[in-house]
Amino acid sequence: MRISVIGSGSELDASTAEDAEAVGRLLAERGHTVVCGGMGGVMKAVCRGASEAGGETIGILPVDDPSAANEWVSTPIATGMGHARNVLVPLNGEAVIAISGSGGTLSEIGFANVYDRPVAGLRTHDLPWIEAVATPSEAVDYVESSTES
Amino acid sequence: MRISVIGSGSELDASTAEDAEAVGRLLAERGHTVVCGGMGGVMKAVCRGASEAGGETIGILPVDDPSAANEWVSTPIATGMGHARNVLVPLNGEAVIAISGSGGTLSEIGFANVYDRPVAGLRTHDLPWIEAVATPSEAVDYVESSTES
Amino acid sequence: MRISVIGSGSELDASTAEDAEAVGRLLAERGHTVVCGGMGGVMKAVCRGASEAGGETIGILPVDDPSAANEWVSTPIATGMGHARNVLVPLNGEAVIAISGSGGTLSEIGFANVYDRPVAGLRTHDLPWIEAVATPSEAVDYVESSTES
Amino acid sequence: MRISVIGSGSELDASTAEDAEAVGRLLAERGHTVVCGGMGGVMKAVCRGASEAGGETIGILPVDDPSAANEWVSTPIATGMGHARNVLVPLNGEAVIAISGSGGTLSEIGFANVYDRPVAGLRTHDLPWIEAVATPSEAVDYVESSTES
Repeated sequence: MRISVIGSGSELDASTAEDAEAVGRLLAERGHTVVCGGMGGVMKAVCRGASEAGGETIGILPVDDPSAANEWVSTPIATGMGHARNVLVPLNGEAVIAISGSGGTLSEIGFANVYDRPVAGLRTHDLPWIEAVATPSEAVDYVESSTES
Repeated sequence: MRISVIGSGSELDASTAEDAEAVGRLLAERGHTVVCGGMGGVMKAVCRGASEAGGETIGILPVDDPSAANEWVSTPIATGMGHARNVLVPLNGEAVIAISGSGGTLSEIGFANVYDRPVAGLRTHDLPWIEAVATPSEAVDYVESSTES
Repeated sequence: MRISVIGSGSELDASTAEDAEAVGRLLAERGHTVVCGGMGGVMKAVCRGASEAGGETIGILPVDDPSAANEWVSTPIATGMGHARNVLVPLNGEAVIAISGSGGTLSEIGFANVYDRPVAGLRTHDLPWIEAVATPSEAVDYVESSTES
Repeated sequence: MRISVIGSGSELDASTAEDAEAVGRLLAERGHTVVCGGMGGVMKAVCRGASEAGGETIGILPVDDPSAANEWVSTPIATGMGHARNVLVPLNGEAVIAISGSGGTLSEIGFANVYDRPVAGLRTHDLPWIEAVATPSEAVDYVESSTES
């Protein structure tokens, strides 16, 4: 299935980068496609992890140039819509993994709630509908179990 | 100036409705224009308060029918963009007042942070960049003081 | 009522600028509000004409900075959505006047058709659902008559 | 490369359906990915042709339910943005093939011009920047030759 991964677009500290990359790798190994914003930070790290494990990655970009996607995005979708594209990221996954992040990530967490997408959170905002997890593997376990019918 | 007011679109309890109406009235009395999502709940109550005090109200609607705005909106802007329109609400005010609310409101709070808009919160989400206030008057005081140059 | 005016955003030749300004002036004199994209070219000329005649002007901007609107816009609505905002311009008027213009204008003419807005065209694209008119006054007459119930 | 295919979303007459399906099949046979609006009419026929020839199809939907895509879409992107999503279709291909169509198609042709995408037209709007072609094969030849560097 498709899992949206959201989080900081800025330069990451080493442990956050490792976690995001591990989330991508685990998702790919279990046959899932990563949906993300396609730019840097968590988006780049998760795509790198997924891509190196042979997985697919969809990057929904704020800019109107598909080539602005990070190099690990296999399917870039350019929008030119700036922050308004944030809603498209949680909408296009069946569940969401949030890793760190600030205001933009928070907007996506809000939209995840609007669209009833379960959210696992790794060192991110603390909200009632986020399942706080401690490791990449717990994050992936949670989104898998929360979407079982 | 223009102040964005965000919050629950659902039926309100009496005290939340009173607070939202009071926020609208105070903003109008002090010469400000209300920007909101133009629909029901907090959006309707704040427009009613502002309108009855002679103020202007801009409602940026998720639907594509301008006549779907609540009756107290003086300038409806239809978008037909669904939840993607949420970013436009905080963007079009110089500061934001949040009253109660759930996922949609949270997305707008996230965008307020992205666009560096100060946020006063009345019984809403608890986040580092929200100034928690206890009354409508404190909310209006805060957005006025936080936008002074 | 609200009338959308669309057209070239580039530097205008003298007669197109005069026509756009006259359209704005006539709309204001007859009590209508101008809705446009809020930037330069036809948008600026029509807002100038309307504003100098005491009318209201709504400018729905592609950028995320409300202060980027031309000086004759009384109500700027920033979107930060780039060209995706084009749909909002015809949607928010009851009828459309198109003056010159290229691809962006054509997209708005397409949306006018999608939303069943009558279109008067002054030296613009030639399409089956555009009423070609020769003067600003004919353009305003047409949008008034086509929206009468 | 990615080629956007746009056109009527309504029930098609037999020859238009055959042409759209042939365009999809030819694009897939030559290794291209179809980008379209993901719904019915031309969008469904072109996806069917591409899919049956083993090609990839991206459908950028106006609705917020990914499962609303036609059955031949391999990568649905839900937007919930209504007609505002039209800009995303030409933007995400390197060139555009237009087949029949009305206002929505015209808006996409306008955006193709805004974003400098070459357009081949099969029985569609007559505009200066559209290369009118007579057959699916000529359409595919044109978009291939017009994007050669």
